[in-house]
Amino acid sequence: MSRPTLALIGATGAVGTVMRDIVSTRDDVWGEIRLVASPRSAGKVLRVRGEDVVVRALAPEVFDGVDIAIFDVPDEVSAEWVPIAAQRGAVVIDKSGTFRMDPDVPLVVPEVNPGDARDRPRNIISTPNCTTLSMMAAMGALHAEYGLRELVVASYQAVSGSGVAGSARLYDEIEALAGDRSIGQTAGDVRKALANKLPDESPFPAPVAFNVVPWAGSYKDGGWASEELKLRNESRKILGIPDLKVSATCVRVPVITTHSLAVHARFEREITVADAHRVLEAAPTVVLMDDPANGVFPTPADVVGTDPTYVGRVRQAVDFPNTLDLFVCGDNLRKGAALNAAEIAELVATEF
Amino acid sequence: MSRPTLALIGATGAVGTVMRDIVSTRDDVWGEIRLVASPRSAGKVLRVRGEDVVVRALAPEVFDGVDIAIFDVPDEVSAEWVPIAAQRGAVVIDKSGTFRMDPDVPLVVPEVNPGDARDRPRNIISTPNCTTLSMMAAMGALHAEYGLRELVVASYQAVSGSGVAGSARLYDEIEALAGDRSIGQTAGDVRKALANKLPDESPFPAPVAFNVVPWAGSYKDGGWASEELKLRNESRKILGIPDLKVSATCVRVPVITTHSLAVHARFEREITVADAHRVLEAAPTVVLMDDPANGVFPTPADVVGTDPTYVGRVRQAVDFPNTLDLFVCGDNLRKGAALNAAEIAELVATEF
Ligand SMILES: NC(=O)c1ccc[n+]([C@@H]2O[C@H](COP(=O)([O-])OP(=O)(O)OC[C@H]3O[C@@H](n4cnc5c(N)ncnc54)[C@H](OP(=O)(O)O)[C@@H]3O)[C@@H](O)[C@H]2O)c1
Ligand SMILES: NC(=O)c1ccc[n+]([C@@H]2O[C@H](COP(=O)([O-])OP(=O)(O)OC[C@H]3O[C@@H](n4cnc5c(N)ncnc54)[C@H](OP(=O)(O)O)[C@@H]3O)[C@@H](O)[C@H]2O)c1
Repeated sequence: MSRPTLALIGATGAVGTVMRDIVSTRDDVWGEIRLVASPRSAGKVLRVRGEDVVVRALAPEVFDGVDIAIFDVPDEVSAEWVPIAAQRGAVVIDKSGTFRMDPDVPLVVPEVNPGDARDRPRNIISTPNCTTLSMMAAMGALHAEYGLRELVVASYQAVSGSGVAGSARLYDEIEALAGDRSIGQTAGDVRKALANKLPDESPFPAPVAFNVVPWAGSYKDGGWASEELKLRNESRKILGIPDLKVSATCVRVPVITTHSLAVHARFEREITVADAHRVLEAAPTVVLMDDPANGVFPTPADVVGTDPTYVGRVRQAVDFPNTLDLFVCGDNLRKGAALNAAEIAELVATEF
Repeated sequence: MSRPTLALIGATGAVGTVMRDIVSTRDDVWGEIRLVASPRSAGKVLRVRGEDVVVRALAPEVFDGVDIAIFDVPDEVSAEWVPIAAQRGAVVIDKSGTFRMDPDVPLVVPEVNPGDARDRPRNIISTPNCTTLSMMAAMGALHAEYGLRELVVASYQAVSGSGVAGSARLYDEIEALAGDRSIGQTAGDVRKALANKLPDESPFPAPVAFNVVPWAGSYKDGGWASEELKLRNESRKILGIPDLKVSATCVRVPVITTHSLAVHARFEREITVADAHRVLEAAPTVVLMDDPANGVFPTPADVVGTDPTYVGRVRQAVDFPNTLDLFVCGDNLRKGAALNAAEIAELVATEF
């Protein structure tokens, strides 16, 4: 077994930054680690595994000698460059939405379907969108024993899901509004205050400070947001349940990092809160925080920056058979993105 | 027809303040308007209908000559004082949770069940909790034509749902955290920063700035929060559907005022997005904002301080029969509390 060469494409971004942190702190199985971003970042010096590495501009040659390439770049950059990297011999792990539903590209969550990573006719493995990923470890564990049939999901999505620009926008908006103790009490007052202080362009279609925004992604037929359909289609593919019933509403909230989901889940078999607790406690990457009488439930502020999927508020849905309601939190940059990619990369690395 | 005397109990509170504004701006059907609060506020001068009124301390005599009394006070104060006011001859409209499920107390939303306000054996009418109310005008209109059968709801509840103290806490937390552009990125960092600057006591069981908190109300059997059960039981009573299936997850978000709900609603009869649009457009107190391709959907920041119930993001739930997903916003202090009470009071006033 030799130590494979790893390339991180998009190393300067929100996910890329966490990616560097993660490969620096997990068991080091890598030979060279190459950092790549846009020509704008070429020559920048970034740290990984405690060493300074010069960032290279994305070009075909950066893949020479690369065994595994993790792509954390916008969809259109992945669409162009992932096939180039794969053709040049790298196993590509791609975090964009571009290849996820391609039948020849496995969509992998190592806790749920690690075996799928080995069957990759295009030399590409996709990692799911961060909202789906935030609940997958937990729902996968419950599905394995009780057979998932239906999911109704409402999301509370962090702004860093829109990258570095998303976090910057929330910090900017909060700074522009803080100190005004009348803000948020009159229709449009937040918009007006921001218009005076910040540029109009925002990663979000409405103010996100002192607000929630029921929109994530691009417009799809029937009034759906792309993120809502991803949650449906990716859950089906990862869990291997082609007829899983899913309805989702995706909502952006003023949280920097960590997505939360309110999940209403119907199973094939009878399931109690105690059953769910047993399964979730046994799941290695899930942490159960469920004692609300004593104030114990997960919140983004308490779990951000950590690896597990946190589950709380598990309740029997009194009016629905075989159904639980629960609340899940997961760091969208770690398990929701960089960590899942690192785990896939480590799976693939064992082949070298 | 004489002009009835109105007493506002809790006139200094979050709901009471909006109550004074609402009776000052709607058609004036009132004779004297009396303002009442705790002994702490006695002697304070507050404005209503453009006039200064001295606040009186709550005492049996304040109800002498009062025709209609609106209570906007904590549950335990209502429990003690509502029966006293009713016994002294006032028709009481109570906004607390104390009497809502009493079979001898009607629970009224004027758009949905106005007739129930006339049948009040205890001389008490209850108005629903603000989360239920935020969706009732819309769901009542859809139910009337299509027969509601199931509701799965996730809430995005504003901090003013916890009164003046709730809003103050969010403003305090935002001021304490603004300017630190690393906040919200490490587990517990928000808690730590707040502990250094603010008192520990908060109306919320976790930080609410840069966070969401999946808990509202008090602990109930099976891990339910009282607010989640209210949403179920009050919806059943108002809509007159004793076997309505309801599951709710209530979550506090960093918004000052206006509750939002992601609603997954199954109906008895087939219903399309166009059907729902037609019904909601015809509902006098509902505003349809549903053109997401052009950025049109309701958000709290755009609707706060106004009266209607706003509905957007109406979608056909592709995997579920006769089912829609939608997003609703309503000002929790107006339609969610003071406005609904004022509308009930106006209904009752026509009897004088
Ligand atoms: N944020 C999340 O929670 C999350 C979760 C799951 C998946 N994803 C996906 O992960 C990907 C990256 O997202 P992000 O949030 O990290 O975005 P981001 O913060 O905006 O970072 C984008 C990265 O892509 C690089 N890049 C942009 N254009 C490029 C080009 N033409 N050639 C080479 N590199 C280019 C940028 O380099 P420069 O700095 O040089 O511009 C930067 O490193 C996206 O596909 C996103 O959908 C994000
Ligand atoms: N906020 C909402 O969105 C909302 C929505 C629906 C229903 N509600 C319900 O409405 C009620 C009022 O809520 P709020 O949010 O307005 O609370 P709040 O801001 O805390 O105001 C409480 C009011 O009650 C008065 N009060 C407290 N103790 C009293 C006593 N012993 N005797 C007489 N008056 C007393 C206070 O007077 P002082 O100023 O003199 O202390 C104040 O006017 C509660 O039952 C709440 O559950 C609230």
